[in-house]
Amino acid sequence: MLEKLKREVYEANLFLVEKGLVINTWGNVSGRDPETGLIVIKPSGVDYADMRPSDLPVITPAGERIEGEMRPSSDTPTHLEIYRAFPYVFGVAHTHSVYATVFAQARRPIPPLGTTHADYFPGEVPVTRLLTPAEIAGEYEKNTGLVIVESIQKGGAGMRACLVASHGPFTWGKDAGEAADVSYVLETVARMAYLTETLSAVPFPAPMQDELLDRHYSRKHGPGAYYGQ
Amino acid sequence: MLEKLKREVYEANLFLVEKGLVINTWGNVSGRDPETGLIVIKPSGVDYADMRPSDLPVITPAGERIEGEMRPSSDTPTHLEIYRAFPYVFGVAHTHSVYATVFAQARRPIPPLGTTHADYFPGEVPVTRLLTPAEIAGEYEKNTGLVIVESIQKGGAGMRACLVASHGPFTWGKDAGEAADVSYVLETVARMAYLTETLSAVPFPAPMQDELLDRHYSRKHGPGAYYGQ
Amino acid sequence: MLEKLKREVYEANLFLVEKGLVINTWGNVSGRDPETGLIVIKPSGVDYADMRPSDLPVITPAGERIEGEMRPSSDTPTHLEIYRAFPYVFGVAHTHSVYATVFAQARRPIPPLGTTHADYFPGEVPVTRLLTPAEIAGEYEKNTGLVIVESIQKGGAGMRACLVASHGPFTWGKDAGEAADVSYVLETVARMAYLTETLSAVPFPAPMQDELLDRHYSRKHGPGAYYGQ
Amino acid sequence: MLEKLKREVYEANLFLVEKGLVINTWGNVSGRDPETGLIVIKPSGVDYADMRPSDLPVITPAGERIEGEMRPSSDTPTHLEIYRAFPYVFGVAHTHSVYATVFAQARRPIPPLGTTHADYFPGEVPVTRLLTPAEIAGEYEKNTGLVIVESIQKGGAGMRACLVASHGPFTWGKDAGEAADVSYVLETVARMAYLTETLSAVPFPAPMQDELLDRHYSRKHGPGAYYGQ
Repeated sequence: MLEKLKREVYEANLFLVEKGLVINTWGNVSGRDPETGLIVIKPSGVDYADMRPSDLPVITPAGERIEGEMRPSSDTPTHLEIYRAFPYVFGVAHTHSVYATVFAQARRPIPPLGTTHADYFPGEVPVTRLLTPAEIAGEYEKNTGLVIVESIQKGGAGMRACLVASHGPFTWGKDAGEAADVSYVLETVARMAYLTETLSAVPFPAPMQDELLDRHYSRKHGPGAYYGQ
Repeated sequence: MLEKLKREVYEANLFLVEKGLVINTWGNVSGRDPETGLIVIKPSGVDYADMRPSDLPVITPAGERIEGEMRPSSDTPTHLEIYRAFPYVFGVAHTHSVYATVFAQARRPIPPLGTTHADYFPGEVPVTRLLTPAEIAGEYEKNTGLVIVESIQKGGAGMRACLVASHGPFTWGKDAGEAADVSYVLETVARMAYLTETLSAVPFPAPMQDELLDRHYSRKHGPGAYYGQ
Repeated sequence: MLEKLKREVYEANLFLVEKGLVINTWGNVSGRDPETGLIVIKPSGVDYADMRPSDLPVITPAGERIEGEMRPSSDTPTHLEIYRAFPYVFGVAHTHSVYATVFAQARRPIPPLGTTHADYFPGEVPVTRLLTPAEIAGEYEKNTGLVIVESIQKGGAGMRACLVASHGPFTWGKDAGEAADVSYVLETVARMAYLTETLSAVPFPAPMQDELLDRHYSRKHGPGAYYGQ
Repeated sequence: MLEKLKREVYEANLFLVEKGLVINTWGNVSGRDPETGLIVIKPSGVDYADMRPSDLPVITPAGERIEGEMRPSSDTPTHLEIYRAFPYVFGVAHTHSVYATVFAQARRPIPPLGTTHADYFPGEVPVTRLLTPAEIAGEYEKNTGLVIVESIQKGGAGMRACLVASHGPFTWGKDAGEAADVSYVLETVARMAYLTETLSAVPFPAPMQDELLDRHYSRKHGPGAYYGQ
């Protein structure tokens, strides 16, 4: 069942690996079938190189596996809460991509600092509050989903990403492919934000000597140019 | 028409992707025909992998499409203002390359800090002023071109790059290939400037123990060398 | 003898090169045979490209070579101390991977800053104390092993990595492959920690103009979207 | 003449490109023939992809071209001063590799911060003084060589690298291949030094919550482990 969706979710999972957003087994993408509401997700702990589309388990919105030999990702309860809260979402992705994870670890939202951000996200990408010790000790993965939903409901419509504090990013969209693409864009936007924030904190440096600047520019571009390394 | 120019512009667009300056569809290169003044530019929103030279629309200096099935890049009005102001320019490129974009986001010019910079740029690479709310609400892409021209006319001849505040770099040159190459060099120069500015802000560290330095150097290079990992 | 172990250790050494953790000959992996206690290790100073499994020397726990034409890695005495102290360890790896080495050079432990760390390490990855001048002048490589053991015995069970001050990381595990994989994970965790620590030190930046944020988001996602680069 | 040396120098030039130390035409390697004292160097401004070993000009120690169609690199006078001052040097390399250039731009020596450095360099890698305006206006490339020699004669034997202030690194060795390899190692050592210096400047961060650390570690490694993404 759902062979087309399985292939889409399979390819979205591999996309994360190709783009360097996931190493080892540190990520997962799922997709929701618009007609039945059933969900296809990466199986737990399997190597990407060995995974085939038919390995992907099918689960109900309540998390019961109804097809597939392998257990669904241990992050499944987090995905399910996102689907439950946002009926317009049909794909969810989770990575530990470096820069988005760094903002999650620093527990800082990603502020909108330029049009690269604004082309994809309507404002700052939120970071969740910390889970309480009771939330960690209890249904931890489900509670992770709940704090994501809590952060987004404050953050408003159109936001397709959230950083889980001390953990990493979740992203979503109209299908599994879009969820994975938002993960890719988020990583680039987070990298630019890291660099912008650290650059903005340092003073302007003294430039090089004018004489050296002029000599180099004119030996290559001036009337008597002689340069070529 | 203009098949040779279309191929040049096509290849300059792909060069940006090969060098990692552009992901998804975040960039565009155009070229101007010296005889007719017509402009060839990347079509809007097309995947680089699917694009063929014949897909590139031909437009007049006023922005009217006179050949091609696809709409020209939505950044076209920005390119047109650069061509209008600088009659010696026959190629324009725009990217969201990471380090150049970071300087644009930090709204800091790229200062000349070494000969790598001086070999290509006659002084600091300027950053535009912010657009006013009215300029953003109006003909936004055209106004972006106008603030670039404004920044360069202050900055002087020979400057082939400008950072648009909170956005990213535009570069230009004697043809589309040179415009793209300047984008590539600018990204390297911006990366070096970021690292130089952040390094210059920190104190000198304490070096390692002399004994350990000497032991390692001499076990590999000294008279009784025995080292090999 | 021990042909299977030689192949495992050979492949674990190449894994470090493939993952970019080792350049030139700057690393080594060994494995211990559970039945005999004999150890197979990378030979000294050999190019990875030229190395074959049969080149790997076999040594006793006391460090005597009993098979192989080539000398064992000059770091062998360090590996031997780790095997001696931790009977549950059957693989040891050493690299100069960039970020783990940077923490070693800064003589800072890698603190647990997120779940990526927590999935592999039960607490902060320790850094050794400095060796004394006498320890450096004497059996330097053996003493390096001893300070590693000293750091871990303080740090507790489950810790599979240690940073040698002013030097670099050693990792270990239930076989050579796991030791190498822990090196790979440690490098990623160290990179995330570097970025988190430097990001946390800078103030929050001013975001971009609201008007520009809204214009970019809505020209691509709003009702009158016209955007495509 | 000197066909074997031409091939060695040719391959050392390509090595710099393969290792990402040189983009466009921003680098050059030369070699000196021990018998005749003649020098083979990269030609000026040629693309690496088009270069053949037979294109490499042969010059005398005084800089006169005695074989080859193409002009020698414009940095030739710098190489010649290094050969003149150090009779034991038979290969010289120059790059604009990012991190070594950043130290040159910041006008900071690269301090010995760990054994990776100590395995190759006997102490801090020096940076030259600034050239005077007269030295820049005069025989600029020759004067660049002279300040390198001046820096090394202060720095002592065994040092095979120097940073030219506001410019970039030169390295050398017993042949062209070694000179290029030292460039490669220097770049790695410079990158580690940049990261160590910037990390050392920031305070220690607060670690993650203990409860979350324990939950993640134990769900993967504890007795009731259930984890797999």
